[in-house]
Amino acid sequence: MCELLGMSANIPTDIVFSFSGFRKRGGERGPHKDGWGIAFYEGKGVRVFRDPSPSAESRMANFVRNYPIKSKSVIAHIRRASTGKTALENTHPFVRELWGREWVFAHNGRVPKVRKRRLKYNRPVGGTDSEHAFCWILDNLREAFPRPPRKPEAYQALIRELCERVAKVGSFNVLLSEGDYLYAHAATRLHWIVRKAPFSKARLIDEDLEVDFSDETTPNDRVAVIATAPLTDNEAWERCRRGEFAVFRDGDRIV
Amino acid sequence: MCELLGMSANIPTDIVFSFSGFRKRGGERGPHKDGWGIAFYEGKGVRVFRDPSPSAESRMANFVRNYPIKSKSVIAHIRRASTGKTALENTHPFVRELWGREWVFAHNGRVPKVRKRRLKYNRPVGGTDSEHAFCWILDNLREAFPRPPRKPEAYQALIRELCERVAKVGSFNVLLSEGDYLYAHAATRLHWIVRKAPFSKARLIDEDLEVDFSDETTPNDRVAVIATAPLTDNEAWERCRRGEFAVFRDGDRIV
Repeated sequence: MCELLGMSANIPTDIVFSFSGFRKRGGERGPHKDGWGIAFYEGKGVRVFRDPSPSAESRMANFVRNYPIKSKSVIAHIRRASTGKTALENTHPFVRELWGREWVFAHNGRVPKVRKRRLKYNRPVGGTDSEHAFCWILDNLREAFPRPPRKPEAYQALIRELCERVAKVGSFNVLLSEGDYLYAHAATRLHWIVRKAPFSKARLIDEDLEVDFSDETTPNDRVAVIATAPLTDNEAWERCRRGEFAVFRDGDRIV
Repeated sequence: MCELLGMSANIPTDIVFSFSGFRKRGGERGPHKDGWGIAFYEGKGVRVFRDPSPSAESRMANFVRNYPIKSKSVIAHIRRASTGKTALENTHPFVRELWGREWVFAHNGRVPKVRKRRLKYNRPVGGTDSEHAFCWILDNLREAFPRPPRKPEAYQALIRELCERVAKVGSFNVLLSEGDYLYAHAATRLHWIVRKAPFSKARLIDEDLEVDFSDETTPNDRVAVIATAPLTDNEAWERCRRGEFAVFRDGDRIV
């Protein structure tokens, strides 16, 4: 199994605090030692760092930890290999272009049967069931909307339906984004929180680190954080129920 | 205009020496200050670092400079914007999946008319003619070979033909790879060199740095380096003629 971390914010925000605790679960305070990755949207572009070594020791994770990249939408993943060897091509998050947008996907759980589903446009590069599921979702979105749809509501309902169809054959905790929206589908375990004014202190569970967000924010800032397990021990994280589908935008949960 | 750097090697090799000089042309010793990027293949996966800030000053370029990532196939680019604003989504190299492989593309030159060509499968995320040309090449490869072709010779002839068709409407110096092979198409300026035993010293043009490759190599090592302009002043770089198409594999030029 793996762990997921996502962020949606209304202004470009760095994820250094959350990532500091999250990465510790990759080989140090957790068993997720088979790689890690993080994707930051910046405008229509996306920066992706992926490394098949444990995030707690990775030099690249040190760099990301110390280089506050600001973004409105972030997806990160630490991996404990189930299907697919420990290799760069099996390291989440995965990225594919659809409708002239970069789509980013990370998965926690197992859906081995999804590999029987035929693909038309996208082919997996690595050997994970996760990447196959991502390709299948994008194939279906493209088949339904050969051209970029004008209204996101149209394809968002389909994303939900496709996640539910994959979830029927296994465990499908997922974070997905095309930059503006962050989609989450929960199976076994997924939590979320929205931080907004009045901001207060937050204390990491996995590292001896506390931050007072009121020092670093303006009253209009709003940040949603989604994670497999709560990252702080003094905030009220909400737990998604099984099968729950959530859509975040600009730091708010809108669905 | 921009500058290109490519490497093909028979064993995983770091590109620190060549990149050290190359990056200096990005804002310090050259005018290519509108971003830079580098892609390293690792197995079937690819690591990509892209930054819309000048490579000579970029913190991420410092990291890449000091973190010797070993790879058999590398493509790098420094950008001087002609079409498309300075933004992450307009920063080369571009990456797209085709036939279950990651394809990496970087371009130096201008081919604005290519944007009139219709696309079917791939859509540009940014606003450059370069990315449009890349999408058009991949669209044509996919159209000709809906399934992954068994023999690379079949599609390599088509890559050459497609490069030549784009080159007709502008200036098209290109590096392209799917991991095993590195393809180069020359228009105005492209040079290459193969380093193999007996290895000797090489001295960078853009930085006060000399390396004795005989200290760092075994007699079986072989590395081809392709660059817009020679990176060293004491080696015999070969200049590609206009319209020349080259294929490199395992550090050798095979076409």
